[in-house]
Amino acid sequence: MKKYEAYLIDLDGTMYRGKSPIPEAKSFIEELKAQGIPFMFVTNNSSRTPEDTQIKLKQFGIESEVHQIMTASLATASYLIEEKPDATAYVIGEKGLTTALEDKGVQLVEDHPDYVVVGIDRHNTYKKIRQACLHVQNGAKLIATNPDIKVPTEKGMVPGNGAFVNLIENVTGMTPEIIGKPTGHMLQIALEQLGVEPEDAIMVGDNYLTDIQAGIRAEMDTLHVHTGVTSKDELMQYAVQPTYSIETLADWVF
Amino acid sequence: MKKYEAYLIDLDGTMYRGKSPIPEAKSFIEELKAQGIPFMFVTNNSSRTPEDTQIKLKQFGIESEVHQIMTASLATASYLIEEKPDATAYVIGEKGLTTALEDKGVQLVEDHPDYVVVGIDRHNTYKKIRQACLHVQNGAKLIATNPDIKVPTEKGMVPGNGAFVNLIENVTGMTPEIIGKPTGHMLQIALEQLGVEPEDAIMVGDNYLTDIQAGIRAEMDTLHVHTGVTSKDELMQYAVQPTYSIETLADWVF
Repeated sequence: MKKYEAYLIDLDGTMYRGKSPIPEAKSFIEELKAQGIPFMFVTNNSSRTPEDTQIKLKQFGIESEVHQIMTASLATASYLIEEKPDATAYVIGEKGLTTALEDKGVQLVEDHPDYVVVGIDRHNTYKKIRQACLHVQNGAKLIATNPDIKVPTEKGMVPGNGAFVNLIENVTGMTPEIIGKPTGHMLQIALEQLGVEPEDAIMVGDNYLTDIQAGIRAEMDTLHVHTGVTSKDELMQYAVQPTYSIETLADWVF
Repeated sequence: MKKYEAYLIDLDGTMYRGKSPIPEAKSFIEELKAQGIPFMFVTNNSSRTPEDTQIKLKQFGIESEVHQIMTASLATASYLIEEKPDATAYVIGEKGLTTALEDKGVQLVEDHPDYVVVGIDRHNTYKKIRQACLHVQNGAKLIATNPDIKVPTEKGMVPGNGAFVNLIENVTGMTPEIIGKPTGHMLQIALEQLGVEPEDAIMVGDNYLTDIQAGIRAEMDTLHVHTGVTSKDELMQYAVQPTYSIETLADWVF
């Protein structure tokens, strides 16, 4: 089996399942560390800062460094600054997003932004959405941290960021640039930071339509693990299969 | 030409154009009154009360009675009470909607509603939308006053009620019942109040996709007037044509 120089790893469904641990995840990460193989977690969650995620992982016994956590918010900030070093943005989003943008030097503005950046915002209002729509019609480029329409909670499905991004797209007719999975942007940015080429790295995740798709689009090899969203039967129906598919992370031979 | 027993009449594009008058509208209404023909205005606007609309019409010299104004909110209230006389509803909407529902006897509740009713709400929040999604998943029936995705303003297009209804549909998978145009519900309710059968009434409007469609679905004859949204050229492309099409309301022979 090919020896990969870096691993990009999904969180929910791969490292843990909601509030429950996935026992094989801890040993998987420890093996990567023991062998000195670089890795990075890649998450579509745009509201949590890397520090928040580090704490969450620690609850499942998984130790990580902050620089090993790539969020859709961090990737969005990198994407903007690469495209326009003095970028200004009108932002709908929470601390994880606003902090990431400001830390990278994106100026957050109310008027005449270069970009309208949309991440999940549980304090979102009609007024903010209306303003975002008007900015986009005035020429600002529409950027979405991630396209997730709905998010499972114990009470039921609640609106995810993608639901609001679609709304803005419907009103303005503008197709958003999506940074998180299933596009390849976030993974490419993670690999740049690791200094590894896509062909030497592998993307690990449970969800075909997000994790595996993102890996394929970033031109990486992919490892599908059956501990989360996509079942074996469901997986079979897709034309492009992951490079590998395993029951649990314990089945992986490094 | 057939003598109609009642006229249902659109507002924007037919009686006025935004803040500008349509000169022929005033004489059209005066002729209806002179001939003693019953009529009712039918509007998808769910935020204005009939009293608000009465004042707006008066600014263009058009005198009307409050009972001659059917809004999507009033129609929604009638629809609910007809379907379930002791209906309870969780409402996203403004005064025009909440007043209409309460006046008809719909009880507005936060928990365990029979219906989730969605109208335009310029104080809408993530929290309200999330709650609406959860209620729908718990079995509440989703009702939309109107399906307009976007609304023109002097600054550009802003989100209309349909944009939020679509969002809730995307998250919950529940198809909404739409009361306003282009469905026939609001027109049927208006005709019931006038005590006139659909085949004896005519729907007058400028917008093929809302006004004329609603008339067709309510099984009424339709009169298209070229003072608003749908141009003559655009009109020609539709398979089902309006019963009549005229340049301005001055061309109509009662």
